[in-house]
Amino acid sequence: MRVVQRLAKGAGEPSGAVDRLFRLVEADLQHVNALILERMRSDVPLIPELAGHLINSGGKRIRPMLTLAAAQLCGYQGLGHIRLATAVEFIHTATLLHDDVVDESELRRGRAAAHVIFGNAPSVLVGDFLFSRSFQLMVETGSLRVLNILSNASAVIAEGEVMQLNTQGNIAVTEDTYLKIIAAKTAALFAAAAESGAVIAQTDGLREAALKLYGHNLGVAFQLVDDALDYSGREAMMGKAVGDDFREGKLTLPVIIAVGHASGDEAEFWRRTMAQRQQVDADLTHAIHLIEKHHAIPATLAKARAFTDEACRALNVFPDSPMRRALVDLAEFCVSRAY
Amino acid sequence: MRVVQRLAKGAGEPSGAVDRLFRLVEADLQHVNALILERMRSDVPLIPELAGHLINSGGKRIRPMLTLAAAQLCGYQGLGHIRLATAVEFIHTATLLHDDVVDESELRRGRAAAHVIFGNAPSVLVGDFLFSRSFQLMVETGSLRVLNILSNASAVIAEGEVMQLNTQGNIAVTEDTYLKIIAAKTAALFAAAAESGAVIAQTDGLREAALKLYGHNLGVAFQLVDDALDYSGREAMMGKAVGDDFREGKLTLPVIIAVGHASGDEAEFWRRTMAQRQQVDADLTHAIHLIEKHHAIPATLAKARAFTDEACRALNVFPDSPMRRALVDLAEFCVSRAY
Repeated sequence: MRVVQRLAKGAGEPSGAVDRLFRLVEADLQHVNALILERMRSDVPLIPELAGHLINSGGKRIRPMLTLAAAQLCGYQGLGHIRLATAVEFIHTATLLHDDVVDESELRRGRAAAHVIFGNAPSVLVGDFLFSRSFQLMVETGSLRVLNILSNASAVIAEGEVMQLNTQGNIAVTEDTYLKIIAAKTAALFAAAAESGAVIAQTDGLREAALKLYGHNLGVAFQLVDDALDYSGREAMMGKAVGDDFREGKLTLPVIIAVGHASGDEAEFWRRTMAQRQQVDADLTHAIHLIEKHHAIPATLAKARAFTDEACRALNVFPDSPMRRALVDLAEFCVSRAY
Repeated sequence: MRVVQRLAKGAGEPSGAVDRLFRLVEADLQHVNALILERMRSDVPLIPELAGHLINSGGKRIRPMLTLAAAQLCGYQGLGHIRLATAVEFIHTATLLHDDVVDESELRRGRAAAHVIFGNAPSVLVGDFLFSRSFQLMVETGSLRVLNILSNASAVIAEGEVMQLNTQGNIAVTEDTYLKIIAAKTAALFAAAAESGAVIAQTDGLREAALKLYGHNLGVAFQLVDDALDYSGREAMMGKAVGDDFREGKLTLPVIIAVGHASGDEAEFWRRTMAQRQQVDADLTHAIHLIEKHHAIPATLAKARAFTDEACRALNVFPDSPMRRALVDLAEFCVSRAY
């Protein structure tokens, strides 16, 4: 129980906003955590070892909670949502393993990233393994619609990641392009997690669409906040290094806003550090200074707030209930979290 | 047509043994090639560009041909096998993209490997994209059993690849372990390709099992021959570098046999070159010399022949037909090919 609680709450402070949702899905989430452990097993010991390094590292389990919550909100009585939520978490874990290889990130959830400890090759392959496991779990639900939703989401995620690679170092990237990228790389899985929970509950099309929309908007907001925190968070709280995006030349909204307001000197700074990736130690501090100067963090958070408002509006097709309120709380948590 | 023929025949000489099978599945294979082109499309141009680099490079399309042939042999009249064969080729392509990153191979099918041209990061992500696409195609067949077979195979493939990584440089690896690895990393997809062709044709359980067994044994034989060619093939014919396995410290059957017969000096040579990976230019030539001295290539090929014999025996549950004979030919091709 204690472990589950820690897993569900993540590396940061316990958050009142997620507590309500957590209590509502707690019993289901325990089953999900047990199934995660069961299905990451393999006769090849390195697989559970590497997967466990990431899976047991205090992820917030937001995506599987979304699936469980959506199924419950739609009155689902079966057990398929446990498998489905596990599949969602495995897809998420697989993409994290591959992303950390792709980004060469050193830290993940406050620990050394898997590829740093185990190497790139096993990280790629264990990602593939978990991805396959997730499809095995979906097959077990017997729902082709769920398989359809999540295979589509997986393709879109990969497209989003490649789009992001393509724009690395391109300081001409627009806010529109950036929003398209985060919709694909992050929001697609949030949307699919929520929608598939509704689908497995065999609810009506409007409720499916509403939960998909909730997930999508929540996912966009979540990524916006993540990208704001990369220039403003406290490292110990975030469990990853501040300035990762800057070092990788990843054009996120705080920088896009700062570039949009840049003087000649400032534009030259962004060109050197992001486009040419010529960075010295003091550059991150200066980047943060410019981002603050142009109020890019509050602007990014305001945008995130607009997306969570939209997410919550989508829930209006459901009558008031503790679960609906808990999902509104989750949206609140996504914009107010400090990690 | 010409392109299809070239694609089906691969980089080497046209092979009489595959011609018969090729003619029988030619019409279907054209549809598969068209569907491959259609489904590797994406709004993100780098994706079809990178995928196309590998997909249009003259792969032999053996795995999708196996699916098409199995479906035909079981009297299938629908169109689902086109999607299924495309899904199989996408899984294969995804694993090749990831393998080349994992192995740091420079050449694939006679061209620079994708990661050498495009980088590791896009290769990993485009592999993920194709993997997702393959599940989308399977969903379109509407067959949960097919999804079950191929998601299981994908998990086993990843396990096989990790097992192989684990044994790299371990000169104590036994033939049994080696056979287990190639059964997982190669034969699992051959088996699934053939079995799923039978499943989509809704044949009986015995025929399904027979085609699975045929695919499995063919796949093991195929990999044994590949591993023999790595020490004995001609580079121009193979489309990949001779000695790749040696340079990577990959313990394949030719080396396992040579190590098993090694004198004290020879054992020391294998320890230095494979376990410690301290290699100088002349070492590959000496390795080939030792492999020849201990007749490890003919021994490996004899083992491959035993597996293809077993593959062909499995087909005896089917009455004689041009397709059955063509599959026997394919087994013949697998052991007699020079690339």
